[in-house]
Amino acid sequence: MTSTPADVHPAWLPSAAWRAVGVRRVHVRGDGPLVATARDEVRAATAAHGGTVVDDPAAADLLLTVDPAVEGDEAFVVGRRDRVTSVRAAGGAALLHGLHHVVRQGDDALGSDRADERHAPVQPVRMLDHWDNMTVHPVMGQVERGYAGGSIFYADGRVRDDLTRVEQYARLLGSVGINAVGLNNVNVHVTEARLLTDHLDGVVRLAGAFRPHGIRVYLSVSFAAPMTVGGLPASDPLDPDVQAWWADAVARVYAAVPDFGGFVVKADSEGQPGPFAYGRDHADGANLLARALKPFGGTVFWRAFVYDHHQDWRDRSTDRARAAHDHFAPLDGRFDDNVVLQVKYGPMDFQTREPVSPVIAAMARTRLAVELQVTQEYTGQQRHAVWLGPQWSEILRFRLWGDTGPTVADVAAGSADAPAGGVVAVSNVGDDEFWTGHPLAQANLYTFARLAWDPSADPVALLDEWIGLTFPDAPPSVGDTVHGILDGSWRTYEDYTAPLGVGFMVRPGHHYGPDVDGYEYTPWGTYHFADRDGIGVDRTRATGTGFTGQYPAPWRDVYEDVTTCPDDLLLFFHHVPWSHELHSGVSVAQHVYDTHWAGAARTEVNAAAWERLAGQVPADLHARVTERLAEQVRGAHEWRDQLCTYVYRHSGIPDARGRRIY
Amino acid sequence: MTSTPADVHPAWLPSAAWRAVGVRRVHVRGDGPLVATARDEVRAATAAHGGTVVDDPAAADLLLTVDPAVEGDEAFVVGRRDRVTSVRAAGGAALLHGLHHVVRQGDDALGSDRADERHAPVQPVRMLDHWDNMTVHPVMGQVERGYAGGSIFYADGRVRDDLTRVEQYARLLGSVGINAVGLNNVNVHVTEARLLTDHLDGVVRLAGAFRPHGIRVYLSVSFAAPMTVGGLPASDPLDPDVQAWWADAVARVYAAVPDFGGFVVKADSEGQPGPFAYGRDHADGANLLARALKPFGGTVFWRAFVYDHHQDWRDRSTDRARAAHDHFAPLDGRFDDNVVLQVKYGPMDFQTREPVSPVIAAMARTRLAVELQVTQEYTGQQRHAVWLGPQWSEILRFRLWGDTGPTVADVAAGSADAPAGGVVAVSNVGDDEFWTGHPLAQANLYTFARLAWDPSADPVALLDEWIGLTFPDAPPSVGDTVHGILDGSWRTYEDYTAPLGVGFMVRPGHHYGPDVDGYEYTPWGTYHFADRDGIGVDRTRATGTGFTGQYPAPWRDVYEDVTTCPDDLLLFFHHVPWSHELHSGVSVAQHVYDTHWAGAARTEVNAAAWERLAGQVPADLHARVTERLAEQVRGAHEWRDQLCTYVYRHSGIPDARGRRIY
Repeated sequence: MTSTPADVHPAWLPSAAWRAVGVRRVHVRGDGPLVATARDEVRAATAAHGGTVVDDPAAADLLLTVDPAVEGDEAFVVGRRDRVTSVRAAGGAALLHGLHHVVRQGDDALGSDRADERHAPVQPVRMLDHWDNMTVHPVMGQVERGYAGGSIFYADGRVRDDLTRVEQYARLLGSVGINAVGLNNVNVHVTEARLLTDHLDGVVRLAGAFRPHGIRVYLSVSFAAPMTVGGLPASDPLDPDVQAWWADAVARVYAAVPDFGGFVVKADSEGQPGPFAYGRDHADGANLLARALKPFGGTVFWRAFVYDHHQDWRDRSTDRARAAHDHFAPLDGRFDDNVVLQVKYGPMDFQTREPVSPVIAAMARTRLAVELQVTQEYTGQQRHAVWLGPQWSEILRFRLWGDTGPTVADVAAGSADAPAGGVVAVSNVGDDEFWTGHPLAQANLYTFARLAWDPSADPVALLDEWIGLTFPDAPPSVGDTVHGILDGSWRTYEDYTAPLGVGFMVRPGHHYGPDVDGYEYTPWGTYHFADRDGIGVDRTRATGTGFTGQYPAPWRDVYEDVTTCPDDLLLFFHHVPWSHELHSGVSVAQHVYDTHWAGAARTEVNAAAWERLAGQVPADLHARVTERLAEQVRGAHEWRDQLCTYVYRHSGIPDARGRRIY
Repeated sequence: MTSTPADVHPAWLPSAAWRAVGVRRVHVRGDGPLVATARDEVRAATAAHGGTVVDDPAAADLLLTVDPAVEGDEAFVVGRRDRVTSVRAAGGAALLHGLHHVVRQGDDALGSDRADERHAPVQPVRMLDHWDNMTVHPVMGQVERGYAGGSIFYADGRVRDDLTRVEQYARLLGSVGINAVGLNNVNVHVTEARLLTDHLDGVVRLAGAFRPHGIRVYLSVSFAAPMTVGGLPASDPLDPDVQAWWADAVARVYAAVPDFGGFVVKADSEGQPGPFAYGRDHADGANLLARALKPFGGTVFWRAFVYDHHQDWRDRSTDRARAAHDHFAPLDGRFDDNVVLQVKYGPMDFQTREPVSPVIAAMARTRLAVELQVTQEYTGQQRHAVWLGPQWSEILRFRLWGDTGPTVADVAAGSADAPAGGVVAVSNVGDDEFWTGHPLAQANLYTFARLAWDPSADPVALLDEWIGLTFPDAPPSVGDTVHGILDGSWRTYEDYTAPLGVGFMVRPGHHYGPDVDGYEYTPWGTYHFADRDGIGVDRTRATGTGFTGQYPAPWRDVYEDVTTCPDDLLLFFHHVPWSHELHSGVSVAQHVYDTHWAGAARTEVNAAAWERLAGQVPADLHARVTERLAEQVRGAHEWRDQLCTYVYRHSGIPDARGRRIY
């Protein structure tokens, strides 16, 4: 257990979380850098809690052993017999996973006998992407969509000299099984394009900070780098000079970072350069980079987030939701085997509620990764307490072909026709003392990692696991209160924001707070079409954009029919009158009134409950959460009042319960 | 006539505009720097056009003479007798005015005999404020609300080394009688606060560039400067240390710039510091600075633009339109005699259409300046051709007490109870090669200056005067086309933007392009309250915010009554049904449809007309205007479609003419 700097919150690895391990006699057997990490952790824990590291395995009551007989790079076997708990794994990374498993289980793993259990991650790639810029972007700040301060990686246009925070972060991630990190923003600006070249020494140092925790680093690259960095006249993927430039650049990276993971690429999207400029398609583009990486075992994560962001709101035939499928489904089978297509979970953009992206069901011969967003761009920006575990769980467990078929997680985990792609998310971490701005947003980072390891896990159990680790010595009222605030918070947030799957309604640009018509007449393709008669987007095949047709059965039909479409997604798929009666039995207008009042009221209950914890949690943490919950109360009421006023002004339908509408 | 750099457009002083003077034999009699300027101009003009500067006044056919017998600092007498045109004035500045008068009149002043005419400015202060920052503000750019490139004054955080552009600008302004310039943004940031101190040498150089053209310089200062620059613990206007700090700072400025004009101050407004922090009022604040300036003859222009920019949209009792009157009217009589209260022409913020501010009628014992906006913040940002001469003329000629009383210009020109304040506007100039981004926006700068000199002038005659000077050698089709594009362009812009005086409906922040609900739920106090039934702000005494009561009769009653309120201002004063019939005979909804289609159509006519001038004006100018007119066409159609859709979605009233609504 290495130490966390005194001024930084230890997250889910406070010293007390190690007590059950730290009081034991522990023996660690094996060699290599990750075994050394495990040994260092054990040494620190026992030093803190009175246990010992023993040289004689026979003297140990916790035995961590490298054992080549255990199958699977990242798998471990854990059991307890004859008063000895044993963790076995074929390598250091897996052994470290096993150690943290025991930490999480605590005395449960170190009490009565337990039969051997084998644990292995469902997803071979569990990745966090950082949208960090090396310099501070004038509009987006240093971390794009970051709500937790500046970058922990970069300062003053270069990799930080002091990587202590990065080492601590790597330890936190490694403890929950994250094994890949994207080091820079997918919108690659001019400075960051040179991470491949001028700043490669910094990448080496960052890789060195992550490596002891079993994490490989990736870089976001610009498709135009052969021009902007390399000085070539073009970046055409079929141009041999371009291919040679990438091959050379990749070789230099691997010479410096032999376990480099590969690239993350946003191409031909929101102004980023891409293969379209040369009349090539995304397969040409992705394969260009894949072939450069192939000799070294690297992978390209190629993002499917491609759409027209200069759409004309007057053109109701264009549907941004269709874009990824329209672009990528025809390319199925054309991607090299070290290309992973990274697909946002929904067809739009990380909304609080979207249907699962039909792309995930459409590309049987393509490696797919599902992309989630831990940073809360559209879900309260870490000022609102919104725990997204249930959202991710629903997505990962969603059965794309109905009740009997594979889930989203199954697709990401691979098949006979396409190896696994994995699960990726955008990180929510910055140089904030609590890592995530809102201290309770640490629960999202934790839950994401644990669900990436096992998408079938019960997210509420993971929430409680996180609470137990983060507040190990607190009285039960703390855990109960934090549980009460976070469990259900996703639904609460949905209740007081954009209703029934319609999405957006946020302030353009920064995406915080309500602006019902903010995107309605913009080029962004994010509309709700509200008028005095109704609201929603007709995406049916019968009368709308035909988006429902991108789904396999049964969803193509479930979503098509307004009578079977789930209420939660009604306005995503249908334009209905304000008076339309939901399955819940109330009209759309009344639903808005009811949910917004209820959601806003719950934020007050939460703030009051937290207030009662004063003195039971550290004062600085209490103060920070108090301040955030107050902002959530304010924001939720602002959302409530804007939405209710908007709906009333349009529909003329009064609230059946007669509450105040402004 | 000094030269304009070859790459900068000469605006209304091209060499050819000097031909009538330049072919004459001219004698300039008198001494001093401004007489020297006049003499230099004549020398250059005669050198270019074949005339001569003659030493013998008897040999001259144009005689410019300093004559102490002419009354008035800035007045001149001009006449022609015995084939000699004579300009007489008591000083150099006035003599320069007279010379430019002759230039504008051209051969008319130099042909047949004309009786002596005395010309003197109606407004003693004719000022342009620059909202220039020394450094580039991350959001606002270098010139706040500037649409013509960077600052001509500053680069890299200091006054430019090369002030050639400033000298040219000073010459342009001096030629139309501007006699005061504010050198920096009224939102005073940290660097600019030090213009008073560390950067005073730069101010000296800028003053030196303006002085030969009869223009005094002013600085915008921060009310908090005693703290931020002076290191004092407070900036309380009643604190003797604060008073001493200002006295000392002012003395140092005057030691360096003996003809320094004074200060422009935005206090307690939109986040700027002010006297409220100390429980003092605006009279205390303004008088503090006035007393420091008094010994040196300086003046404080204290802006009345004070309102609550953290308003709650839910609170319909607060009305931003009332704010300036509420704040300042009670202070009438409390301002020192070297304080000028600088009042925006309307109660809101430089909208395309607002009623005249009631503050102008409410402070008989206070010196008032009227503030206009030449930079087109809300009127197309110099991408749209919008000539504002008629707007300013309407405002300046507006009779505040009805048909027989004084006009706005009369109030600004002073009375027995309050000396003149003058006319002020925000400049539209930057380091753009055409000065103003849109070359035709030069007409606004020209017209403002000429109306400040004589508010009773016919603006259309000033437009044609500007056309004649700017395009002196062009075929008549050029003048006709430019006249056709600009005359009526204010109404055209109004037609396709926010209707009937309701204002705003622009994109928040940058204020370009439509966003009907963009400000509807914000803290800015700029609402239209549209719903399915109607639109507009009830500002009546009977049922609304009572704003109409801030006007004297007859306007308090004209505006109060929906049947007498002018259509142009209907939605500023009243909330009416979409079906409300205007005096024009159509409903509000139909009015929106009709005006928006008509306005957008006129932009197409203008663009087509300009296209036909290819080859008749310089190619670079033609290209620039072509590009801008194309953007205006695009923008006008975007405005049209958003407004029509918005109104239809709310009202459900179809267009009687069946045009396409999206």
